[in-house]
Amino acid sequence: MRWPEKVKIKEVGPRDGLQNEKKIIPSDTKIGWIDSLSETGLSYIEVTSFVNPKWIPQLADSLEVAKGIRRNPGVTYAALVPNLKGLEGALEANMDEIAVFMSTSESHNQKNINKSIQDTYPVLHETVKLALQEGKKVRGYLSTVFGCPYEGRVSMDQVMTVCDRLFEMGIDELSLGDTIGVANPRQVEEVLENCLKNFKGANFALHFHDTRGMALANILKALEMGFDTFDSALGGLGGCPYAPGASGNVATDDLVHMLEKMGIDTGIEQDKLLKAGSFLQQKMHSRLPSHQMAVYNAAKA
Amino acid sequence: MRWPEKVKIKEVGPRDGLQNEKKIIPSDTKIGWIDSLSETGLSYIEVTSFVNPKWIPQLADSLEVAKGIRRNPGVTYAALVPNLKGLEGALEANMDEIAVFMSTSESHNQKNINKSIQDTYPVLHETVKLALQEGKKVRGYLSTVFGCPYEGRVSMDQVMTVCDRLFEMGIDELSLGDTIGVANPRQVEEVLENCLKNFKGANFALHFHDTRGMALANILKALEMGFDTFDSALGGLGGCPYAPGASGNVATDDLVHMLEKMGIDTGIEQDKLLKAGSFLQQKMHSRLPSHQMAVYNAAKA
Repeated sequence: MRWPEKVKIKEVGPRDGLQNEKKIIPSDTKIGWIDSLSETGLSYIEVTSFVNPKWIPQLADSLEVAKGIRRNPGVTYAALVPNLKGLEGALEANMDEIAVFMSTSESHNQKNINKSIQDTYPVLHETVKLALQEGKKVRGYLSTVFGCPYEGRVSMDQVMTVCDRLFEMGIDELSLGDTIGVANPRQVEEVLENCLKNFKGANFALHFHDTRGMALANILKALEMGFDTFDSALGGLGGCPYAPGASGNVATDDLVHMLEKMGIDTGIEQDKLLKAGSFLQQKMHSRLPSHQMAVYNAAKA
Repeated sequence: MRWPEKVKIKEVGPRDGLQNEKKIIPSDTKIGWIDSLSETGLSYIEVTSFVNPKWIPQLADSLEVAKGIRRNPGVTYAALVPNLKGLEGALEANMDEIAVFMSTSESHNQKNINKSIQDTYPVLHETVKLALQEGKKVRGYLSTVFGCPYEGRVSMDQVMTVCDRLFEMGIDELSLGDTIGVANPRQVEEVLENCLKNFKGANFALHFHDTRGMALANILKALEMGFDTFDSALGGLGGCPYAPGASGNVATDDLVHMLEKMGIDTGIEQDKLLKAGSFLQQKMHSRLPSHQMAVYNAAKA
């Protein structure tokens, strides 16, 4: 199979990137950043997460941010919600799409959601059901698909079972997450072969973190198998500031750069991405860890 | 074609990595570092370059370093030489292998070697000839194969012509260099298809820099086409200290990690690589930019 001609990129920086940032960022900075992302040609931005602020203080202003952004009609704005309460906020902010999440490994699910996998299903089910009733598409995030920090490798059966349960609920697209950045191209091939075999015609996205530097190689492998939807965060946001490059989502700017160089259309303008990255760097007074931003910063220096 | 079962990694950090380091590193540090690399399972180490110290002051101690290292019988020790004078030094230090170099683009060759491509051929020819007479294998480095900082894209004809001329001289292996880190997987495929077609059974290595973060993806593509020899530098050495990740060779530790995760044998012990990286970090008082070293440093912090 050859590379697809077009690829869809879903920007998760304002949610997955920011939620790991210790320093609280003012709401107007978040809004300004999302507004600049809206001008890049991105067709999908996950704006925030409606979770209990006790768990993620950085996103305590989710309603303010979601209501404050300028909506570009060409962009789908989504929010992550853990349950009905979260969905309430997302509906109040009139999000275009909803995303729910759970882990494929029991112990990560327990640590992250404070529930067993079995107890998580009904919570997601009622959330998905109401979202669909409200006319919203629902996306599902699956964590630890390629490895769990507590259990190591997760069995293929387990991954397929959780995928099945979520698609059954009416979820439109499942994003397979390499939460701790351990996936390698051979493993990606194995998992995706199983997805293709078991869920013909289903919508999958890949969600890689770049902890070990393998994210773009993994994406190349997925592209070759016909997958065309990828999550990423501008600048590789989400990494630990004390270990540059040592985690964080794969960088939107690095991904777009590689794809466009390969002649694969992303619809995204690279100079505008770098401008949005530069905006965030100025506001956060720190450097973003992506390769393109490093080249950009070096050229400015 | 599937991935090879084994891959050969050629460590170029002590030469290609160090030559970009502004701060002069004491000879005994270099020797200690190369000695630690010799214990990792690496089968090939490029120790230094016998060039005029006027051009690369960092490697002015090439003879001292090459003579000072502890030779592990399982390791091939090589040195880069620009001409007969350089070869003299490499022979005096009893290097196992010799490497010569030139660019595929006229203007980079002029800037780097101070000669036209046409005038470089005879210089390399006499150097290769004497090295072969002395019983040494000769490797050839080709710079700017995937792009030139002055001319942009280099024509496939030009690349093939230079390859042909060098193989004609009796060169054992050609290392195709992405000097400025601009190669993408589609381009790698194009170039390597031409190499396979025009030079059946010839020995090629790939030499990627990770400026734009595409090195491991490019290597994955090359692996899938049956190529099994790659140059790299421990820790991704060679990058600009003011722009982490913004250049440097692909990191040996990142490459070995990916390959071993994929079940491809490198013969290299990862913990010993990290130890050698840690040694260099302590001596240089700075962090190496690879992903594995970032994870290692974060764990130690």
